[in-house]
Amino acid sequence: MSALRDHAGTVRLVDHHVHGCWLSPVGRHRFENALNEANTEAVASFDSAFDTQLGFSVRAHCSEMLGLDRHVEPDVYWAARRTIPEDVLAQRFLRAAGVSDWMVDTGFADGVAGIDELAALDSGRVHEIVRLETVAEQAAAAPGDYAAAFDELLWRQTRTALGTKSILAYRGGFPGDLSEPSPAEVADAAARWRDAGGMRLRDRVLLRFGLHRALRLGKPLQLHVGFGDRDADLHAANPTHLIDFLRGSGDTPVLLLHCYPYEREAGYLAQAFNNVHLDGSLSIHHLGARSAAFVGRLLELAPFRKILYASDGFGPAELHYLGARLWRAGIATTLQGFVDAGEWSQPDAVRVIDLIAHRNAERVYGLS
Amino acid sequence: MSALRDHAGTVRLVDHHVHGCWLSPVGRHRFENALNEANTEAVASFDSAFDTQLGFSVRAHCSEMLGLDRHVEPDVYWAARRTIPEDVLAQRFLRAAGVSDWMVDTGFADGVAGIDELAALDSGRVHEIVRLETVAEQAAAAPGDYAAAFDELLWRQTRTALGTKSILAYRGGFPGDLSEPSPAEVADAAARWRDAGGMRLRDRVLLRFGLHRALRLGKPLQLHVGFGDRDADLHAANPTHLIDFLRGSGDTPVLLLHCYPYEREAGYLAQAFNNVHLDGSLSIHHLGARSAAFVGRLLELAPFRKILYASDGFGPAELHYLGARLWRAGIATTLQGFVDAGEWSQPDAVRVIDLIAHRNAERVYGLS
Amino acid sequence: MSALRDHAGTVRLVDHHVHGCWLSPVGRHRFENALNEANTEAVASFDSAFDTQLGFSVRAHCSEMLGLDRHVEPDVYWAARRTIPEDVLAQRFLRAAGVSDWMVDTGFADGVAGIDELAALDSGRVHEIVRLETVAEQAAAAPGDYAAAFDELLWRQTRTALGTKSILAYRGGFPGDLSEPSPAEVADAAARWRDAGGMRLRDRVLLRFGLHRALRLGKPLQLHVGFGDRDADLHAANPTHLIDFLRGSGDTPVLLLHCYPYEREAGYLAQAFNNVHLDGSLSIHHLGARSAAFVGRLLELAPFRKILYASDGFGPAELHYLGARLWRAGIATTLQGFVDAGEWSQPDAVRVIDLIAHRNAERVYGLS
Repeated sequence: MSALRDHAGTVRLVDHHVHGCWLSPVGRHRFENALNEANTEAVASFDSAFDTQLGFSVRAHCSEMLGLDRHVEPDVYWAARRTIPEDVLAQRFLRAAGVSDWMVDTGFADGVAGIDELAALDSGRVHEIVRLETVAEQAAAAPGDYAAAFDELLWRQTRTALGTKSILAYRGGFPGDLSEPSPAEVADAAARWRDAGGMRLRDRVLLRFGLHRALRLGKPLQLHVGFGDRDADLHAANPTHLIDFLRGSGDTPVLLLHCYPYEREAGYLAQAFNNVHLDGSLSIHHLGARSAAFVGRLLELAPFRKILYASDGFGPAELHYLGARLWRAGIATTLQGFVDAGEWSQPDAVRVIDLIAHRNAERVYGLS
Repeated sequence: MSALRDHAGTVRLVDHHVHGCWLSPVGRHRFENALNEANTEAVASFDSAFDTQLGFSVRAHCSEMLGLDRHVEPDVYWAARRTIPEDVLAQRFLRAAGVSDWMVDTGFADGVAGIDELAALDSGRVHEIVRLETVAEQAAAAPGDYAAAFDELLWRQTRTALGTKSILAYRGGFPGDLSEPSPAEVADAAARWRDAGGMRLRDRVLLRFGLHRALRLGKPLQLHVGFGDRDADLHAANPTHLIDFLRGSGDTPVLLLHCYPYEREAGYLAQAFNNVHLDGSLSIHHLGARSAAFVGRLLELAPFRKILYASDGFGPAELHYLGARLWRAGIATTLQGFVDAGEWSQPDAVRVIDLIAHRNAERVYGLS
Repeated sequence: MSALRDHAGTVRLVDHHVHGCWLSPVGRHRFENALNEANTEAVASFDSAFDTQLGFSVRAHCSEMLGLDRHVEPDVYWAARRTIPEDVLAQRFLRAAGVSDWMVDTGFADGVAGIDELAALDSGRVHEIVRLETVAEQAAAAPGDYAAAFDELLWRQTRTALGTKSILAYRGGFPGDLSEPSPAEVADAAARWRDAGGMRLRDRVLLRFGLHRALRLGKPLQLHVGFGDRDADLHAANPTHLIDFLRGSGDTPVLLLHCYPYEREAGYLAQAFNNVHLDGSLSIHHLGARSAAFVGRLLELAPFRKILYASDGFGPAELHYLGARLWRAGIATTLQGFVDAGEWSQPDAVRVIDLIAHRNAERVYGLS
């Protein structure tokens, strides 16, 4: 156990992009499906989500948290897990993550803990991130001028929230025009969308409007990039297609989330634009035994003050924990390799761990 | 020699995507050109296909099979090789691959052994995979309604064949509409193509028709993805452009072949769709000393029950052997690393080797 | 210290793509900005270009050249650096690079040494590479027929120059038609461009014209690929979009520069076309502690006679040195790994080092 590994294993984390965890019991079927991010259908009967890198990581690292041996069989893991109340599991895993601050995307919270419930777990401070597409849907449902309603809702909700998030990747993707639309275009598009019911925003004009309102607000803007579920076209979530948008994004911090398999492209953008940052988030726990290699790839072109930690945990609290556990192991392995090769000094490695673990997030989000 | 490496070195393989090997003697020029996959011209006089990862692997691993030292000079290798009859070489290399079942794409077989000749080598069972574009060309040459002729030919040829294959990547690529065309569209397109001679299908409507007929047939459908020769535009063979097609592909197993350099994207699709599988096949032997790293990348997002072994050997029987030899070494190195890091258990690693080596293929193709 | 590492550490290099270094003192602000390639604005005040892989590499490897300990703090490095005249630094770093021949792209030389000044440093022979877009701008300013003026200028400038270079990636990118335009199209486009001032060529017809003139000239043609500054759209600098152009490029050597993060795609093209070559150049020093992994990725599909060394140094002479220093370390680490694994022989590894270090460049450029 090197000093570096020891530091990585205990450093305080800010999880700048996460969702709620479950608080009520679920069945095994639902549990297994929650280990598959990309599939929007039930995992096939011939398959098991335990037979994946993430499934193997659950058995390797979460077993101990249930008092079991490493690598126990899925049936053994499940039998032990179902005897423990979900909220007890949640608190156990969240506390073990070593996270001081959780920034929670509340835009999709089906079946998972809300802000207040997470705070009640007493496992770190809880902050909100406001999803722009949800604000848009609320504005569509509000009376009067759409743009004014959007601005009012965004302003009100972000008085306490730390930032905004867009899932443009799921609503048509990045290629194409992302410039700010004119007020007339916005009014026309809003009228059409309201006539059509105002649900599940996919109108490009209104998506662009939301993004530019978020830029004007100036609070950090998170963007889903790369790996997610198959409702998005992966190739349309390649962040290189954001370059024109980023050229006009000014000083508002932009945070590229997940990024896999476009982490090298995202790192390039983080070097190219002062306001662009990135994380690896859910890609880390989904890559399991391959996650250290991914953590290494995040440390290529991106300046070290532009890389943040996140888990993107959603549902099973194992994910909130595994993100941290695997990141800690991956950054230690990666940086120890740099130190052993004589490329980095040990104090530099410790400092970069601190930057990614919490200092960069504290600067970007203005956390005290 | 660890137990894991020992198991990987001896496990029985199903080679689910391969072509025939040579049975008649060839000259050195043709041999060297067969070590270059991408180039459709003769390798330049200043160059040598021996000065590649594949060339070095031939000298490292195939030399012993000719009674030579590892790493002998190309001239020495060639001098020894030309003294051995091609069919003797073929049998020696194929048997040494440790393959119980060969699934042979008979769509391109210029100068190589056919199904019966391969079976006569007594080196494993031989099965057929039917190329859809060849069926289309036969249907164009048949009398009467094109669609009916295609269906009749497909049905007849797949009574004994285990699956189908498309080389859409070589006939315009993946981007663009891949929905099922209407009968009228098919009839019109077939009439135009027949008038033009009915050779080398590139008509998009008829390519789409063939793919959807294969889906309806329900037998596994293999798709060439990524690395191949320069007749294909590599960027149009990126499997992310298949996502709309896959959304409508139902339960028919789809197998993404080769995948390099899009193996991460292919792994994503294998997680996103219950019916999608992948292999590394010819990328493995072409990467030589770098193939273990590639085998590792195949073990990222793809569930372990969705990854298959294949060699894609064509021509020199060295390739049928090297695919196996390098996969065995690469999977052992990769999984031993996971076990040594405490991320995987040894029994899990052994089981995943079995899945990729033969169990997944047996399930997908219904092999007994 | 293995024999392989020793050989890599001392082998003579040809740096086939480089720019001038500074000869006059600069301030720290400018120095730090010169460590960021992608950003066209000043690095933000919250950031420091020292907190990057390149910055860490400067402190790790260049400190010794200033008589300092490895990994000294940026302030210490800067304090020592500013006491040494820039031309003394330049000579020290360039000589330590171990380069016998520098091929200098003179198309962008703002604030850096020209050909004669570099030659005066007495640190190796200096050759010129002519930038096609600069020739075009000179032809626009010349009297008479544009095409004739371009040909005359190109012919005159390349009598002594070793090759040409295009920055098409910065002038619209690779996707789209790159065929040779007709004389009438060229005349029309030239007239329009001259009317508009004839500055900073972005006209597609004239860019295509320049490329095809360079092919006809037959001297090696360098193309900027991938990583560069944000004026280029990274996705439009993916070399797979060059495939149609390459299909018609005949025997003229084409050299794909930098390539990151598309090095695997570039390697594919180097296998697919007899005339295509590649380097890693500035990607190497920007990747710092991650550069050995990148050097490994360059050794995948590209035949070993198609890979060249380059630094792409521009500005601080640290870059001219670091490119060499990190390539030497990276190739040694990579090839020692191949030898240790039994995949390559030691003599083969030594020979491949020689090919990449200087022999391939000598063949391509006809150096004696």
